[in-house]
This record gives sequence, C-alpha cells and structure tokens, in this order.
Amino acid sequence: MESGPAVKEAGAPATGRTRLRVRYPETDHMGVVHHTHYLTWFEVGRTELMRERGRAYADMEKEGIFMPVVEAECRYLSSARYDEEIEIETRVASASRIRVEFAYNAFRVADGKLLATGRTVHVATDSGGVPRRMSQGDVDALEGSVGKPPRKARR
Amino acid sequence: MESGPAVKEAGAPATGRTRLRVRYPETDHMGVVHHTHYLTWFEVGRTELMRERGRAYADMEKEGIFMPVVEAECRYLSSARYDEEIEIETRVASASRIRVEFAYNAFRVADGKLLATGRTVHVATDSGGVPRRMSQGDVDALEGSVGKPPRKARR
Amino acid sequence: MESGPAVKEAGAPATGRTRLRVRYPETDHMGVVHHTHYLTWFEVGRTELMRERGRAYADMEKEGIFMPVVEAECRYLSSARYDEEIEIETRVASASRIRVEFAYNAFRVADGKLLATGRTVHVATDSGGVPRRMSQGDVDALEGSVGKPPRKARR
Amino acid sequence: MESGPAVKEAGAPATGRTRLRVRYPETDHMGVVHHTHYLTWFEVGRTELMRERGRAYADMEKEGIFMPVVEAECRYLSSARYDEEIEIETRVASASRIRVEFAYNAFRVADGKLLATGRTVHVATDSGGVPRRMSQGDVDALEGSVGKPPRKARR
Repeated sequence: MESGPAVKEAGAPATGRTRLRVRYPETDHMGVVHHTHYLTWFEVGRTELMRERGRAYADMEKEGIFMPVVEAECRYLSSARYDEEIEIETRVASASRIRVEFAYNAFRVADGKLLATGRTVHVATDSGGVPRRMSQGDVDALEGSVGKPPRKARR
Repeated sequence: MESGPAVKEAGAPATGRTRLRVRYPETDHMGVVHHTHYLTWFEVGRTELMRERGRAYADMEKEGIFMPVVEAECRYLSSARYDEEIEIETRVASASRIRVEFAYNAFRVADGKLLATGRTVHVATDSGGVPRRMSQGDVDALEGSVGKPPRKARR
Repeated sequence: MESGPAVKEAGAPATGRTRLRVRYPETDHMGVVHHTHYLTWFEVGRTELMRERGRAYADMEKEGIFMPVVEAECRYLSSARYDEEIEIETRVASASRIRVEFAYNAFRVADGKLLATGRTVHVATDSGGVPRRMSQGDVDALEGSVGKPPRKARR
Repeated sequence: MESGPAVKEAGAPATGRTRLRVRYPETDHMGVVHHTHYLTWFEVGRTELMRERGRAYADMEKEGIFMPVVEAECRYLSSARYDEEIEIETRVASASRIRVEFAYNAFRVADGKLLATGRTVHVATDSGGVPRRMSQGDVDALEGSVGKPPRKARR
C-alpha cells in the first residue's frame, strides 16, 4: 500500500527523538543503569513525542483522557553508565480510539550504540481507569497526521 | 519534669521499629545505597509507626487529612549495601494539630551500625494542600498516648 | 512427561511467595502504582526465591556470577494503591548454565486480585557483563532441586 | 572583606541553572511531585554546574575522587506537578579540599515560583569511601575561579 508511507512523509516525522542524561540514582551497584529506568525513559520519549505532535499528554489528562500502560516490554542489548547522554527514539506503532502502541529505541549518543528496544501498549480510560474512547482527533495527533488533508481528499 | 517520661512509659512504645531489605535499584554505581532512598525508608518507618499506633496514614487520607513533608533532613554516617537488612527506628519528636515532626535512625541489622539519622516536618492539610487542623485524637494517636487516661486525670 | 511434575513435588516449592506494601513514592498522580515499580517488585520476588532456595543472589555476586536482565515484560490487569499489601509469586520458568527465566504474578492480598503478570530473562555474566557459565549447582538451586536425589537415581 | 564578592564577579557565574521536566513516576497519589525527587534534581543541578565549570563529576570519579553526600536537607514551599518545567539553581556555598557544600533553589519556570530550597554537604573520598583530599585545582573549579588570576596577583 503506497498510502502508508505517503501519509508518513506528508505529516509530522514518523519518529520523535528526545535526549536525556543518566542520573546517578539510575545506576546500580553493577555500575550500569538499572533495567527498570528504561521504562521511565520510554515514558519521557512518548511524552515528548505527544508534545511535539501538538497533543501534550498533560493536556489530555486535564480533559479526562488517561492512557495507562497495560503491557510493557523491553530488551536490553548494551549497558548505559552514569552521565552518558541517551537518545530515545519513539514512534506510534498503532493507534485507535481505544488502544495505542508505542515502540522505542534507546541509543547512547556518544557512539550511536543501541542499548535497548521496547514497546508499551496503552488503553484510553477516564481518570478512574474505566475504558473510554478518545477522539479521532487525538488518534490523528498521535499518528502525526494532524494538519494534513483528510485521507479521502488525498487520493 | 517527671510527667514526660511517665507518659511515654504508660502508653505505646516511644519508638517504632520496622525492617526492610535494600533493593537492587536502591544501590548506585558507587556500590552503596543512594542517599535519596533513606527518605523513602523514613516514610516507610513513619507509615508503620502510625499503623502500629492505630492510626494508619492511608486511613487519615481517606478522611481528608494529609500530612505533606515541609522539611526533610538526613545525615549519612555509614553506607548500606544491596540485600542488607535495615532497621528504621521512628519516633514522634513533637506533634500538634497543625504540625508533626518525626525523627529517624537507620541501622544495619547485621552489626547494629547506625547508618543515617534524619528528621521530617509535616503540616496537616486537606487533599489540595490547604492547611487544616487534625483532631486532638489524631495528635494523641501520633504521640502514642491513646488508651491512656487523660492528662488531667493522671495527676 | 510425568517426570516434570514429579520433580517439582519432590523438591522445594515450585513457587516462592513474598509480601511487600505499596510505598507512597511508588504511587503516581493517577492515584495508583506506577507501572515501572512492578519490575522492582519482581526483582524482590526473585531475590527472596533465591534466598529461600539457599542461593542468595548477593552471595552469587560475591562469587563473581551476575545475572543481568536481558528481557523484561509485564501485563497490567488491575491497579494497586498506596499501603496495599501485595504478594509476589515467583517461579523459575527455565534455567540453564547460561540463561534463566523467571515468571511472576503480583496479587493484592486483601482480595486476592491478580494485578500483573510478568517475565524476566537473565544471562549469567561476570562483574563486567561478559557472559560466563554458572555452575550446575547454581542451576539446581534455582530450579529448587537441591537436596533431591540426582535425576538418574530417581528412575 | 571586599575580595570575596570581587572574586565572584571576576570568574564563572556564581550560580548554575539547569532545567528539567517533571516525569510521571516522580508524582505521587496526592497529585504532586514526591518530596524525595528534589534530592535527585539537586544532584542533576550540581552535576550540570560542575560540567559547566569544566570539571565533570563523572571525570572526577574516573580519576578516583568521589564526593558522597554526608548531609542533605530540603524545605518544601510549593508543589510541582506532572510535566511542569523546573529550573534548578545551584551554587557552591563553600569548598575546601575535604568538604564541599552546595545550595539549591528549585523554581517552576511557568510562574517563577520558588518550590523548594536545599543544601547538601559532601566529603571527598576514594572509590571505597575513605576520605582523601581533592586537588586545589578541583576546589578552584568548583568555586568557579578557574582561569582567573591567582588571588595574590589580583591585589
């Protein structure tokens, strides 16, 4: 399907990139970043991706849409150390009004080494965790297709 | 003043003790527990002290009384390591309807070594952080004087 | 294969159980435990399982065997809240001299509700992260088959 | 002594400033940042101050100088919330070859509100925590007086 890539090219970049530095308490006594912190970094990645796409997650929450994590996974390929600069690459793997999946890569900036890859799945809920649908506008924002002509018009 | 000690002897133990084990992510790449985690352990200490005194903090919150931290301090004397068992000794240094101060000691169980001492000051607020008074019953519970004859009657 | 279950029955319990309480900083502003902390709790679960089976992970490390996480995943089914008591059920899903997989369930103690399930995969390394083999004795300890007659003799 | 202020004016800025955003897991179920995380933010502040002054703490550690925290304190004045941008203002309150004290202010960027103030005291040690002296060059770097004429020459 040629329309898939075409959509990506026309809209926001398919992938968000954000950088952070390893904080001291994120390291453990083996001398490297403890595996739990990658999930936090992925959260930073998707927060920045959503902000960049014009739909800050903090704003969604203020409007009553929450996106709790229902699945998370991570593969660890190489270790990060204190004070290293890390780039988190985040993309929306799929999005619907009830479910969004993000995919992540974490790289060390100094040598470009891939440290970890991951995936989180989220469902849309209200503030109490009860499932609700997000708007199609939110789905479009997540997919980075906001501001582009509607699909129908593009053909 | 003889009444001070007498009050302590008559009521709950002056000091609560709770144990925990150092978790892997609490260590840092220097090989020891990162200094931030002692504040979390002190929180565990005061939570268990309050539960033991019949006034679980979770219940206070459900009734609309919050006790946010307005001051915290810690002195670090010796290091703790992964998997060591730690004892947190907690006492109420002072309590009124608007302000409570806790004092803490953290020991390594294996050799009884004092690792850190600390202090936190809390004010009573509603769920939004607006100051409010807690009941005298809550103050008495915090002080461990519940179930004892009222002060007047003791003389 | 009848020998699989039989091995389990003869040795240590197939599953370790450990309890912990939700700490205040483990909650997030949605009012529930943040998803990252389940990975820490799973680590507590496998630490206690290994201690119970006579092979504390802290001791393994002192002998130069490390077991860094190479894969982690978690499914979140229900939310935990501040001060709730949680039971972590841990079992060794598979173990060899180079790779160990643990599986986890997290329950709320009050109502027995299953909150999350997870899995971590570990490889054996030296202190610098270089792969090395653990001893067969360590594998047996992890599998809970220490102190049982060797497999051959059981037939 | 007029030379004190004069030294400050002549060298690096007396105060380092660094910005960060509140991460989701840094909030707690009261809806605000948990008090423990300010200590982590202060650590980010002093790390960036030292980098800016040409003496990255990561490099000091590689050369065998560690600066563990021996005292920490924080006063909490107002609350921070998820996704708010925070500025940490850090200055070296005093420095010698054996002891360094940092002072911190945390502000919300949006309205300039002062959220917290703090202080940490550090001693110079080797990697095992044994006290050792840092070089006068390190002290000068920390004080921001590197690249300035020696005190004697200024008169």
